[in-house]
Amino acid sequence: MATQAQAIDINTLPQYASMENLLFLLFDVHGADMLSQHPRFQDFDKETIEMSIAAARQLSDTYLFPYLEKMDREGCTYADGQIYVPAEIKAVMKQMAEGGWIASTAPIEAGGLDMPHMVQIAAEFLFEAANNAVVGYPMLTAGAARLIYSFGSAELSNTYVPHMFEGNWQGTMALTEPQAGSSLTDITTKATPTAAGHFLIEGQKIFISSGDHDQVENVVHLMLARIEGAPAGTKGISLFVVPKKRPTEAGDLEDNDVQTAGIFHKMGQLAYATAHLMMGEKGNCHGYLVGEENQGLRYMFQMMNAARISVGVGGAGVASAAYYASYRYALERPQGRPIGKRDLSKPQTLITNHPDVRRMLFMQKAIVEGSLGLILQCGYYLDKMHTTEGEEKMHYYQLLELLTPIVKTYPCEAGIQAVSNGLQVLGGYGFLKDYALEQYYRDIRIMPIYEGTTGIQSQDLLGRKVMMNQGEVVKMLMAEVQKDIARAKQWESFAGTIAALEKELMRVGQVIQHLSTIAMKGETTRFLSDANLFMEMFSLVVVAWQWLKQGIEAQNQLAETTDSERVLFLESKLHTMRFFYAYELVKTKGLAARLMDETVLTLVDSERELLR
Amino acid sequence: MATQAQAIDINTLPQYASMENLLFLLFDVHGADMLSQHPRFQDFDKETIEMSIAAARQLSDTYLFPYLEKMDREGCTYADGQIYVPAEIKAVMKQMAEGGWIASTAPIEAGGLDMPHMVQIAAEFLFEAANNAVVGYPMLTAGAARLIYSFGSAELSNTYVPHMFEGNWQGTMALTEPQAGSSLTDITTKATPTAAGHFLIEGQKIFISSGDHDQVENVVHLMLARIEGAPAGTKGISLFVVPKKRPTEAGDLEDNDVQTAGIFHKMGQLAYATAHLMMGEKGNCHGYLVGEENQGLRYMFQMMNAARISVGVGGAGVASAAYYASYRYALERPQGRPIGKRDLSKPQTLITNHPDVRRMLFMQKAIVEGSLGLILQCGYYLDKMHTTEGEEKMHYYQLLELLTPIVKTYPCEAGIQAVSNGLQVLGGYGFLKDYALEQYYRDIRIMPIYEGTTGIQSQDLLGRKVMMNQGEVVKMLMAEVQKDIARAKQWESFAGTIAALEKELMRVGQVIQHLSTIAMKGETTRFLSDANLFMEMFSLVVVAWQWLKQGIEAQNQLAETTDSERVLFLESKLHTMRFFYAYELVKTKGLAARLMDETVLTLVDSERELLR
Repeated sequence: MATQAQAIDINTLPQYASMENLLFLLFDVHGADMLSQHPRFQDFDKETIEMSIAAARQLSDTYLFPYLEKMDREGCTYADGQIYVPAEIKAVMKQMAEGGWIASTAPIEAGGLDMPHMVQIAAEFLFEAANNAVVGYPMLTAGAARLIYSFGSAELSNTYVPHMFEGNWQGTMALTEPQAGSSLTDITTKATPTAAGHFLIEGQKIFISSGDHDQVENVVHLMLARIEGAPAGTKGISLFVVPKKRPTEAGDLEDNDVQTAGIFHKMGQLAYATAHLMMGEKGNCHGYLVGEENQGLRYMFQMMNAARISVGVGGAGVASAAYYASYRYALERPQGRPIGKRDLSKPQTLITNHPDVRRMLFMQKAIVEGSLGLILQCGYYLDKMHTTEGEEKMHYYQLLELLTPIVKTYPCEAGIQAVSNGLQVLGGYGFLKDYALEQYYRDIRIMPIYEGTTGIQSQDLLGRKVMMNQGEVVKMLMAEVQKDIARAKQWESFAGTIAALEKELMRVGQVIQHLSTIAMKGETTRFLSDANLFMEMFSLVVVAWQWLKQGIEAQNQLAETTDSERVLFLESKLHTMRFFYAYELVKTKGLAARLMDETVLTLVDSERELLR
Repeated sequence: MATQAQAIDINTLPQYASMENLLFLLFDVHGADMLSQHPRFQDFDKETIEMSIAAARQLSDTYLFPYLEKMDREGCTYADGQIYVPAEIKAVMKQMAEGGWIASTAPIEAGGLDMPHMVQIAAEFLFEAANNAVVGYPMLTAGAARLIYSFGSAELSNTYVPHMFEGNWQGTMALTEPQAGSSLTDITTKATPTAAGHFLIEGQKIFISSGDHDQVENVVHLMLARIEGAPAGTKGISLFVVPKKRPTEAGDLEDNDVQTAGIFHKMGQLAYATAHLMMGEKGNCHGYLVGEENQGLRYMFQMMNAARISVGVGGAGVASAAYYASYRYALERPQGRPIGKRDLSKPQTLITNHPDVRRMLFMQKAIVEGSLGLILQCGYYLDKMHTTEGEEKMHYYQLLELLTPIVKTYPCEAGIQAVSNGLQVLGGYGFLKDYALEQYYRDIRIMPIYEGTTGIQSQDLLGRKVMMNQGEVVKMLMAEVQKDIARAKQWESFAGTIAALEKELMRVGQVIQHLSTIAMKGETTRFLSDANLFMEMFSLVVVAWQWLKQGIEAQNQLAETTDSERVLFLESKLHTMRFFYAYELVKTKGLAARLMDETVLTLVDSERELLR
């Protein structure tokens, strides 16, 4: 009976992310190199993409990963209306700009590179894995710049975008207000038109990531506000550019009455400044309307949807780093004897040989690589959406709409479980500041809160996306899954995996049917009460599909590969796919049982408060 | 359709633990007042117990809860061989001593109160809920003192125990060494006999909780070491009293060559000093043998088993505090509109009215109160074990042995999930230092690591406890469950709950049968590989039993109660029981599917390393 695996050389292991796996997913599974067939991406052939990814890795190795711990310990400080962040942030912004990562997906005419989103997302995964707390500085800048050139006037674009692409001006998305939180309906920041064309902004914003810091020359807020007399609710929200300092005609910068009232003291992502801003305390805060009045939320959704994918990338990135950190530890830490072979005369075994530790490692790997597959799938749909027209474009758009709440949620929620298991691998050392695990554990906890909590994403998924076009979009996704199932059928060894996935597809169908009936009866509360459970169940099936895709490609390559190291990589893929099905996918059983439960257990009772 | 519950008055809500619930569990469900029928506990009638619990609450309100945040921010520091802790620890030690909580369960002849363990545990629950990071100071002192008076000489007892009971001398358990970690087999700390009777100790210990600090006069380590020539492994381990300062015949204290080499920097429990100790650097560290040579591990198990229950109490306590903190927040935070009633002209609703938030609150309540029930069940068995003889004593002893790994694990693992949901209730604010949730989230993460990780407890449960006496102990526990099922049958409304629990008992039986077959084939690795999953499944069933007990009592009281507030308390109990069955217990389905899976998915392969 086998009890001890031959440990692999720790020097061959990644520190935070596997390049072999990333390239396997990018090219072999998701065909990123095929995108260059379209004129828009013609410059991005395989070699160019490989070079881009290698450059991103280089940047991560040099400017991000080495400062992970230092930046966490140093954190951000606030004094006299100014936030101070670790000095290395300046180099991060400059390197990201020079590497083209702020302008990457922007169109060439806007000064960008027209890079496929898949490539950008793959690079972001490396950045997040290397140092998740600082990626938001350049990436929010990219997103904010994109909002300006997508919907703003040429003048606005010319004034702001170049400085942002150069990494000298920070961009933000400024939505949240103290009294409204997630409820954008209730924002009250006021914009008053002036004869000069600009608006006067008055109000407060909280939780503004990278909302102020000392390593850039200026901060440009993409801010939601209400113009006086606008309709109530989200239909009366407009989008403004509100800079910290406004450019004068003379080419200087002058104060724009955006006060930084304070900094939020957080559990994790300590190097990432989160600001509380007050606009117009002196009545002199200028805001510049982006696009048309009252269309602000529609514009903002472009940035929010991109940000939702980015948060998923963050979750997967941190989980990847935690996986390799815990695996490396397990390969060096001797403790105890192999199960069933307690020979005290022998030296202790490495903990990587204990099945329980291995289970925790495989679990992490299954979540990390499954999440990354899902993320790149979304990147693929995004790119296809931008390079197709008409019905085809709508096809990709709808698939992406359906997957967006999932890609925001699964890598973060499952990522937390993965990181927690990584920490557990280290035992008592996992709780110490001596190892990165405790930082990853603190950092990743914000992910299911960012950009719409899991609760909000789950209601979006079940209440809107699944119900879109009478459930047609779910059928579209199922058809995609069926295509891959058909491909898998060429291999007899996939029979069990296929059967399991087909059973899950049926189960999801039944759950949706059941919930739809409740929805159609108008029992909205009951319909949406367990949306989180539906999210968890649906995510597991979607990620099982991603694992099937990875498994098929691994099996295909195995048939043609002789290189022994590659063979092990591919067998590891297949093994982890089976692990995901055996350990993770089975969780749908309990979730479905609850979701299909005909006993009405109300969480809400209008007559009696049963919480105590 | 009901969408909005009537919110209850926040002033009626506990800050960290519900006294009504604690007393309901202690007396009504677990009959603590019945213990006084035995001469040993004759002084502890209901009134006395109530006064003890009220005193514990008073102590918590005055000396623990108010300093929760302050102590976390201040933390512990190390300088020149000495650890400094928050000054309030001195008052904590003195108050705990004066309140009798250090000597509580000690026999009267040893200077104790002979208090039932159930009462002590109930008090500890309040302490842990109020300020989990400091409870170890007095409680480890209690456990260490007990080891001395249980197994040490009268001289040792007279020298050390009174100072410890007075809270002037700190007690510790000093087991872990750098090279051994959880593997006690491999400890190497050396004890060399001297003609004077004491031993000279030489070695290192790490992760020693309360291992050194400046708020006591002395620190008394209960330390495991090997006497030269002792047998290999755990059979050659002896137990010693190793004080930081040793009492001289003149009545002074002199340095005993126990160096504090440093402090561990942790993610949470920052007020709790964790020391790295070096003994005998100058060849002058005296150790005093407790009991007989080579019996150390056996003695230590007394302290370890008590400590395992205490860690479970800690998990439940932190989860309780997190539950009330998040519930209180939810009762004050307006945000958004009720599902299906998005009327913008109305003010925002309290988030406690959102079903998703309510689900997260009920989930916490279900875990907290289920855990507390389990903990008191163990306390009950402990007391019964101490007040019975022969076969009856063995009955309680074996039940306790079976439940010990579960009570160590479930409140901690499920507690982490509960606290995480509590944090999520607060959205972005949950991630901030402004609220206690982020501290609870950091603090509770150590619990599944303390006193044997979840992996170790799970192997203990499946590999030893379930297999004890050919599985007889599981049958004993099942018989206990069946007794309560029989009681529940008087109420028709329990039919569904009973059916669900009976199904689970059968399922657990099948899983055990399946795993036993594997064990009997000698496939030890495969048998134990998924012990963690078995732990999770078995725990859910045990806690479902605890919920049934609580439900029965609630239903019984409902039939006789007219007080409207009490009626709501009891209905809340019944509702939460149903919630536990509907949302938590169903998780066994996926766990059983994996555990019964006939497809052998090896986690360990001797020929190829499939982790990558």
